[in-house]
Amino acid sequence: MTTNEKALKMHEEWNGKIETTAKSHVHSREDLAIAYTPGVAEPCKVIAKDKEAAYTYTMKANTVAVISDGSAVLGLGNIGALAAMPVMEGKAVLFKEFGGVNAVPICLDTQDTEEIIQTVVNIAPAFGGINLEDISAPRCFEIEERLKELLNIPVFHDDQHGTAIVVLAGIINALKVTGKSKETSKVVVNGAGSAGIAITKLLLTYGFKEITMCDINGIISKASPNLNWMQQKMAEVTNLEGRTGTLADALVGADIFVGVSAPGIVTSEMVASMNQDAILFAMANPVPEIMPDLAKAAGARIVGTGRSDFPNQVNNVVAFPGIFKGALEGRASQITEEMKLATAQAIADLVPEDDLNEEHILPEAFDPRVADVVSQAVKERI
Amino acid sequence: MTTNEKALKMHEEWNGKIETTAKSHVHSREDLAIAYTPGVAEPCKVIAKDKEAAYTYTMKANTVAVISDGSAVLGLGNIGALAAMPVMEGKAVLFKEFGGVNAVPICLDTQDTEEIIQTVVNIAPAFGGINLEDISAPRCFEIEERLKELLNIPVFHDDQHGTAIVVLAGIINALKVTGKSKETSKVVVNGAGSAGIAITKLLLTYGFKEITMCDINGIISKASPNLNWMQQKMAEVTNLEGRTGTLADALVGADIFVGVSAPGIVTSEMVASMNQDAILFAMANPVPEIMPDLAKAAGARIVGTGRSDFPNQVNNVVAFPGIFKGALEGRASQITEEMKLATAQAIADLVPEDDLNEEHILPEAFDPRVADVVSQAVKERI
Repeated sequence: MTTNEKALKMHEEWNGKIETTAKSHVHSREDLAIAYTPGVAEPCKVIAKDKEAAYTYTMKANTVAVISDGSAVLGLGNIGALAAMPVMEGKAVLFKEFGGVNAVPICLDTQDTEEIIQTVVNIAPAFGGINLEDISAPRCFEIEERLKELLNIPVFHDDQHGTAIVVLAGIINALKVTGKSKETSKVVVNGAGSAGIAITKLLLTYGFKEITMCDINGIISKASPNLNWMQQKMAEVTNLEGRTGTLADALVGADIFVGVSAPGIVTSEMVASMNQDAILFAMANPVPEIMPDLAKAAGARIVGTGRSDFPNQVNNVVAFPGIFKGALEGRASQITEEMKLATAQAIADLVPEDDLNEEHILPEAFDPRVADVVSQAVKERI
Repeated sequence: MTTNEKALKMHEEWNGKIETTAKSHVHSREDLAIAYTPGVAEPCKVIAKDKEAAYTYTMKANTVAVISDGSAVLGLGNIGALAAMPVMEGKAVLFKEFGGVNAVPICLDTQDTEEIIQTVVNIAPAFGGINLEDISAPRCFEIEERLKELLNIPVFHDDQHGTAIVVLAGIINALKVTGKSKETSKVVVNGAGSAGIAITKLLLTYGFKEITMCDINGIISKASPNLNWMQQKMAEVTNLEGRTGTLADALVGADIFVGVSAPGIVTSEMVASMNQDAILFAMANPVPEIMPDLAKAAGARIVGTGRSDFPNQVNNVVAFPGIFKGALEGRASQITEEMKLATAQAIADLVPEDDLNEEHILPEAFDPRVADVVSQAVKERI
């Protein structure tokens, strides 16, 4: 049986990958009087006087909503709310299994920006955090920004920031291995959707100076036509020399390639045209922008992908469960840039110096230390 | 330690009475590939083609949302979304413990009718049913009616229909014990909020002919001032003789009193003025409209209350978990009047003829047969 066949069979067997479980069991009238009426009125009255008490007496303390409108699901595109459910349930499983965080998958029957914002605001009281997922760009940027303004709980679009944090973690260690520096390395980010833009922003915040973004039309500059508002903003802070041309042009002399784009679009010649000790994160899924062996043969020193069957897997699961665990435990009102940088550094530091090499720049997804280390890094920045 | 003190302490210890639990555990790369990417794409693709498949592959099959705006919480009134959470979590616990149904408590940060409707519609894809809770009248009527039109999953306002069903179950058995009939019995319902109106409607549907509703201003008639739109509708189908006067006037010669109103407002004299073998459901909480011993001394034959420490407790928990269990298992698109009547009859029938007496007209909340019997009654009417 293939993985796909097995996945379908198991999903039928599970009939929902998440269930709700009672922590307060009700086997007697006394149980009922304590968990429900009349006893339940007591915590209600305390919360009515002091909203913070909700973190003491309710599941808000440790529960996030995993919210999608089904508009940009995995590699499947705009499949809608209902069809997105298995992914959101899967995400909720990862929250619980890796971070001990309760997560409720909620798929929205609207793709209207204002309606999404209003709906999330309206359901927010029950939750300690909001994880946005698989919402297409550029709507995802506005939805996240507005929700951060409107809510006093953490709002985090994992497709953007989770990916960006893990890529930065990998790059931090790749710089160590290659002796390159953030100040002088030339970076090319290919793909100007949610992940590509978030990666670029975080690399700039971290201190990279020379980043060029590309999309399907080649190098993005202020002169590029048909950019959305966020891409226009990015054009102001990247490609400062105003270069034009193709991805191949951009890669000449580059130190780092980050691809969140399409299978096989990077050729051996392009890699060969990069600087010595080139670093590639080829994260198109399931087929990378260039296969690691090809890239290595063409002169790349470090290659990471999104796949678990190659070295240096970039997997968000090392970030988001620990980030929300820390944010909830510390009652952070938002996930700041400082927290993202600290998280990336903490993930990078999980690979000890003497273990660090071309094939090992990121910790394993199943490294049991990850969630605690990440949550600690977040909590220290609250 | 009092029940209230213990309740507060236990709520702190629980820190949320509900948690989410993974049914698909993730301990290896293979687990990850099946529960999440890439395998998860398979059920997504099937659902994208056939929406019904969501019931096979996702938690929608067995999950309800417990939704409140915190506007009419227990006896606490309009305490808002956050303070309502312990009650909604408690309700979710009862769904799981009594009916095996997953339930997610969602408290809404809006009390605007249109926004509530839109929000529930938007989050509905993730759920197989919607249980509305503690929403004030008359908004609750419009919200429920509109949602029933807009959604193809069951929508059920438990404060209305759960209460009405259990009261009807009690009345069915009380008629048996007293030899009264639905065609000739005179009923007085005191309280014209969500529960009182739903009880009256269901009793009319069941076949009672003479029902008089009262509120704080006395008997409700078409001439009563300040009725809301739903109370006006009720005035068309009750009190057909157009009587006016006080609750005391209404009770003269009545056979059945149903109170969802205020503590101690029924006097011994009022009970004495009722017909022989009077039946009283005095459900004000925690202090009934009249205490059972007083009512009995004044001539009542059967008295039910909302309390577990008196006989004949009217407890919704014998209804809603089984109703949703049946509706979900049978994929009902709504809870019909026929299902409500069948549920009431099934609950009544759980008390065997030879056990039926003045002190035992309803099954125990913890009777393990209840949820299955109720769910079966619902499924047979789909």
